[in-house]
Amino acid sequence: MGRCSLLLLLLASLTPGAGSPVSPSLRAPSSLPWSTSFRSRPTITLKYSIRYIQQKVDHFGFNIDRTFKQRYLIADNYWKEDGGSILFYTGNEGDIIWFCNNTGFMWDIAEEMKAMLVFAEHRYYGESLPFGADSFSDSRHLNFLTTEQALADFAKLIKYLKRTIPGARKQPVIALGGSYGGMLAAWFRMKYPHLVVGALASSAPIWQFNDLVPCDVFMKIVTTDFSQSGPNCSESIRRSWDAINRLAKKGPGLRWLSEALHLCTPLTKLQDVQHLKDWIAETWVNLAMVDYPYESNFLQPLPAWPVKVVCQYFKYSNVPDTLLLRNIFQALNVYYNYSGQAKCLNVSETATSSLGVQGWSYQACTEMVMPTCSDGVDDMFEPHSWNMKEYSDDCFKQWGVRPRPSWIPTMYGGKNISSHTNIIFSNGELDPWSGGGVTKDITDTLLAIVIPNGAHHLDLRASNALDPVSVQLTRSLEVKYMKQWVTDFYVRLRKMN
Amino acid sequence: MGRCSLLLLLLASLTPGAGSPVSPSLRAPSSLPWSTSFRSRPTITLKYSIRYIQQKVDHFGFNIDRTFKQRYLIADNYWKEDGGSILFYTGNEGDIIWFCNNTGFMWDIAEEMKAMLVFAEHRYYGESLPFGADSFSDSRHLNFLTTEQALADFAKLIKYLKRTIPGARKQPVIALGGSYGGMLAAWFRMKYPHLVVGALASSAPIWQFNDLVPCDVFMKIVTTDFSQSGPNCSESIRRSWDAINRLAKKGPGLRWLSEALHLCTPLTKLQDVQHLKDWIAETWVNLAMVDYPYESNFLQPLPAWPVKVVCQYFKYSNVPDTLLLRNIFQALNVYYNYSGQAKCLNVSETATSSLGVQGWSYQACTEMVMPTCSDGVDDMFEPHSWNMKEYSDDCFKQWGVRPRPSWIPTMYGGKNISSHTNIIFSNGELDPWSGGGVTKDITDTLLAIVIPNGAHHLDLRASNALDPVSVQLTRSLEVKYMKQWVTDFYVRLRKMN
Repeated sequence: MGRCSLLLLLLASLTPGAGSPVSPSLRAPSSLPWSTSFRSRPTITLKYSIRYIQQKVDHFGFNIDRTFKQRYLIADNYWKEDGGSILFYTGNEGDIIWFCNNTGFMWDIAEEMKAMLVFAEHRYYGESLPFGADSFSDSRHLNFLTTEQALADFAKLIKYLKRTIPGARKQPVIALGGSYGGMLAAWFRMKYPHLVVGALASSAPIWQFNDLVPCDVFMKIVTTDFSQSGPNCSESIRRSWDAINRLAKKGPGLRWLSEALHLCTPLTKLQDVQHLKDWIAETWVNLAMVDYPYESNFLQPLPAWPVKVVCQYFKYSNVPDTLLLRNIFQALNVYYNYSGQAKCLNVSETATSSLGVQGWSYQACTEMVMPTCSDGVDDMFEPHSWNMKEYSDDCFKQWGVRPRPSWIPTMYGGKNISSHTNIIFSNGELDPWSGGGVTKDITDTLLAIVIPNGAHHLDLRASNALDPVSVQLTRSLEVKYMKQWVTDFYVRLRKMN
Repeated sequence: MGRCSLLLLLLASLTPGAGSPVSPSLRAPSSLPWSTSFRSRPTITLKYSIRYIQQKVDHFGFNIDRTFKQRYLIADNYWKEDGGSILFYTGNEGDIIWFCNNTGFMWDIAEEMKAMLVFAEHRYYGESLPFGADSFSDSRHLNFLTTEQALADFAKLIKYLKRTIPGARKQPVIALGGSYGGMLAAWFRMKYPHLVVGALASSAPIWQFNDLVPCDVFMKIVTTDFSQSGPNCSESIRRSWDAINRLAKKGPGLRWLSEALHLCTPLTKLQDVQHLKDWIAETWVNLAMVDYPYESNFLQPLPAWPVKVVCQYFKYSNVPDTLLLRNIFQALNVYYNYSGQAKCLNVSETATSSLGVQGWSYQACTEMVMPTCSDGVDDMFEPHSWNMKEYSDDCFKQWGVRPRPSWIPTMYGGKNISSHTNIIFSNGELDPWSGGGVTKDITDTLLAIVIPNGAHHLDLRASNALDPVSVQLTRSLEVKYMKQWVTDFYVRLRKMN
């Protein structure tokens, strides 16, 4: 499957040159079911200031003394000096404003928690580029893109805020994050427990490393989502790979496929077919991640329960290959053209440009090696074993570095984390990443919450009238625990004085 | 005072070219009181294997993939697979064999703990040089000499031992260390609690940073040691600085001082006098550190209770300057010439060459900034304020780097470490470094033991018939706690299976 990131798969980025639109005349078909009914969700008014802090490029060495500007957002409308708290979002692989806009939970609870909100951008993403435009130019410039450096940035930022904001010094800080940011929140509490009283790690697959969980768990969950979203759905998708192969081998097959799928760049050679299938597979994965119960716009503008919508195209079993492929197109359109604006489908794009594709590709080639595989039997994908050697060679070719797949478990403890405290691991049952997450309580302060009907960090999103009860309960529980940490902090503080 | 290391002060190393012997004919006076009675302590027979592990030079970056050989010692004579343990010495700033030879405690308890002993050498010390002879050539080569890299080496070594030694995988590991090694043991438990069930941090001044403790606490403790070791002792030393100044100003004063102190390199200019005083001050500090109750050879061969022996030369108050200086010489001789072999005193040497002077000087100029100061009133030294600007400039001149004095508290929590567990902090009351150590229990698993009559990590030394009861009790208590950690580990293990 290639390098599988948390918020987007990266196959497209591994195929340079693919996807420049050459058929602008291709129009999105007028039969697109939701192109007219699309409406944007009501936006929460988020009032924050954008600020910057000078950070050392290298916290762990002294030879390079260069600094860079890390961006962060701060909102203190509801903050109270007396008994308040600081909710600190540990930014992940993208533009921090985008994460801020997609983490409505923090805004929803700010008043109740008397909280100052801080959203810290992750180095090498958004505007926080250690070497500006050169940041991704080679492995020398990328050398400081690691989780340890990112956590150290967060530590320095918290110390700085406490030092400079009157009233902030004696306040408890809680780390919050989703996806890769959720891992960072959990790891931050593990490594810097003196700076945060606890962490909410939403959809954080901290065990999707090395051999901590079977590599096939991810694709199995995607498959289950599709199986449960409509009859024949996962079966049809499983059948589609061979159908594509058969069609591609026929005389005008590539042209037929290009037209049936309305591809911006027509397929011209057999390798393009593999790339096409990878891109389609990635689309199903993304759909499983963002299978939210209401219209949303995270990776793409989407209808409510998008997997159910997709599965409506796969109701019938054993349809002919050509019809199956036309249905595949309709299904892809749900993901890529809900707005009705797309003129063609671009196989080199799968998600919002707010995500930092280059940065994550490098991270996946160094520390963040998260094995996935499929067998085509227990899942609906083509069989793909996990081949570390090939993966490493690809990384070396692309970035000139080789991954160290056992490093993250060595650094962050793997499954042996019971000595830590005050971390909530929440996981949506629909989320493929939940397979690498903590879904059972480890101790009475390392807590797991599983959200039935929940997709990727649904709990961190703004509350919505269409939210299932499960996520409402989850959020109440999360607030309850966080309030307890805050109370414990103030009790300790009073004892010390 | 310049850069004060844990096991040796580093003023000498800041004065290049000082101290090459030019008066080899000078003989140690035959009146040296202990030169004939010197006998070496019975040596424990230490049977260990010397081994090496390939370590990444940079655990925190992927651009440099170079490795180096880290040395470690291993002894398994008493190790039992069934119910045993692994005692892991977190090596500090010197040759690991020397630390092994001076950590008899681990050998003494090996049988009782059914323990495998491992002594891991710290990178950039002993034979564990990441760039061989070039390791100290410039700040580029020294860039990987940090506590974080050293802890990562230990982590990788433990993982490697567990993977490769049959029976070691399901055994509890305990980190032990003294002085800077004690800090590393404590920090290792804090940062890698999944790899060690607890830590014994002996004489570890983890709070001698930034403004966590007053900078004058160190010199005050040295002074108290001397005050309590004989009448007029600290007063005489306090008077000696001005006596030296007065003598130096007289016509043949420098020659007189050089002869009276039997210096290998005669003083030729007034700057030499400051260097001389710094060297003498450093000697008193070292004596306080190694004020052991029996003949020993740690920094130097020394008699039992060496500070008492030194203080015998300062019994009388208000002696003339010249007599005071002759007494200073006798006192210095206790430290530098107990063996009776020294032909002259070398002001550029203060301790064993097993310590890595260059490595520590760099560490003191980067992370390990441990402020000390004196006022000449509450202590017996010349007044010296702590001047961070000057310190930083000196570091920049010598190594091309600037210290980051607030980094260690940011990284390791400063005084806010109560969320960690299973660390014993032991401190000798005579040890000047105890001022920056943890001397009161923090929680019921973060324990402090203070050893009256104990000098620098006395508890880690081999048991001795002359040991005070206090250190015997300390060691029993330490074994009791360590056994509890081992028991808890096996209980947890059984529960999991």
